[in-house]
Amino acid sequence: MLELPFAKGHGTRNDFVVFADPDDAWRLDDAQVRLLCDRRAGLGADGVLRAVRSKHALEWGGDPDGWFMDYRNADGGYAEMCGNGLRVFCRFLVEEGLAAGPELVVATRAGLRRGRLCPDGMIEATMGDVALGDCFDVTVAAGEGPTRISARFVDVGNPHLVSFLPPGVGLYGLDLSESPTWEPAGAFPAGVNCEFVQVLDEGELRMRVYERGSAETWSCGTGVVACAAVARHELWPNLDRVVVEVLGGRLSVAFDGAAARLLGPAEIVARGVVRLPERP
Amino acid sequence: MLELPFAKGHGTRNDFVVFADPDDAWRLDDAQVRLLCDRRAGLGADGVLRAVRSKHALEWGGDPDGWFMDYRNADGGYAEMCGNGLRVFCRFLVEEGLAAGPELVVATRAGLRRGRLCPDGMIEATMGDVALGDCFDVTVAAGEGPTRISARFVDVGNPHLVSFLPPGVGLYGLDLSESPTWEPAGAFPAGVNCEFVQVLDEGELRMRVYERGSAETWSCGTGVVACAAVARHELWPNLDRVVVEVLGGRLSVAFDGAAARLLGPAEIVARGVVRLPERP
Repeated sequence: MLELPFAKGHGTRNDFVVFADPDDAWRLDDAQVRLLCDRRAGLGADGVLRAVRSKHALEWGGDPDGWFMDYRNADGGYAEMCGNGLRVFCRFLVEEGLAAGPELVVATRAGLRRGRLCPDGMIEATMGDVALGDCFDVTVAAGEGPTRISARFVDVGNPHLVSFLPPGVGLYGLDLSESPTWEPAGAFPAGVNCEFVQVLDEGELRMRVYERGSAETWSCGTGVVACAAVARHELWPNLDRVVVEVLGGRLSVAFDGAAARLLGPAEIVARGVVRLPERP
Repeated sequence: MLELPFAKGHGTRNDFVVFADPDDAWRLDDAQVRLLCDRRAGLGADGVLRAVRSKHALEWGGDPDGWFMDYRNADGGYAEMCGNGLRVFCRFLVEEGLAAGPELVVATRAGLRRGRLCPDGMIEATMGDVALGDCFDVTVAAGEGPTRISARFVDVGNPHLVSFLPPGVGLYGLDLSESPTWEPAGAFPAGVNCEFVQVLDEGELRMRVYERGSAETWSCGTGVVACAAVARHELWPNLDRVVVEVLGGRLSVAFDGAAARLLGPAEIVARGVVRLPERP
């Protein structure tokens, strides 16, 4: 049995097991990640964040002594980026004394990102450029049966399909206990995150999300940015800040051209040691 | 902000935050318990187990230096007993060096209980006398609409309504996302745990449970004992051991007259320190 030092944190109830592994000693297999994220038999989380010195991260050729965020979904799969995870990761690095703050640079599979601890306790993270793509059809279960909605593809380092709900389709009437489907079915062989959005007011959205590799989560940082980008493109070209309400709280997205920043709370809740079975 | 040393453990995926508080310094309020059990913003658990020296437990007048298991449900409410919790509690006391084992005595709101760490790693706990009571009607949601089933009341230190499913009602077709209801509606003002049972084979049951104050859980030790007692009374008077399969694993119940013992796995997964807001 292994003993892994960990922290548990969340940003708008999107929660993570996070741990420091500067020398790349902890290459977890899928089963170990799944156990960490198991909400009954393990610690429970939407994903795992491993802090590795960049020189050990094959995916990254930048500053060798900087930190690479090795993000894994709850099913063990790798993902390019995670906006709430990045903000929790920044909080973790500063609390553990691994980075000074209040400004941080973090390497991710989607490239370099910057974090900033704001005086009011919020954490802002750069999310890179947002690229809007084609439209697809998404089918999602609802009380009245499957509902088909048009969705726009958005690339925020990871892939999203953003659906603005047509009149008469209620956000809380959607059944996200199973993954939505999309057409053409073969369009996203590695999966795609699906967001469903309601407009609350000018500059204000409400969103639910089905994350690939996890399930419905209480929040998804890149999904929030994707929704804000589509709303800005289609509804509010002159706004450079959009607030998005998710099940777990509120996040704010600021734009500077195509470049987005995500702002909101992120906190560490617990620290300790967790037991893991050895890799087979 | 307070920092509470904790362990997290589970028995057949019925999971608990457990902590030692020998001198009764940590009287958590409901909000603090709810945060500990919050699966996104806290640690996440079905309940909280606090180990207090018996002399501090008003509910108990026995050996002052023995351990009292102060069990709280995820909503903060107090409960008399918790069979899987008791087994995890025993594991915790021995692992922390708070009790010697392999035999332990634990005080609970339902009276004294005994635990035993078995050579094969399982933990057996005495569950006291089981008392069968009257029959009631339980209504539970199912795919085809609400289903009304006869249920027998069982007292295992805490209250249970055990429903054996009639032919044609599938165990996994039940919708336990909401609490079942019972008639007469006023019969259990403090709530009652509702078990639904299928016979798999002689001496072998399968069960799902809706725990008052928690929701559907993956396992419930007292519920398993209640189901085994009803099955023994109605089907198998000559059997003194019944195996019960729950969503989280398998448990075994042994009878010596009306006295029951519960046997199964129980393990500690993690240890650490969790942050809690101060009581207002």
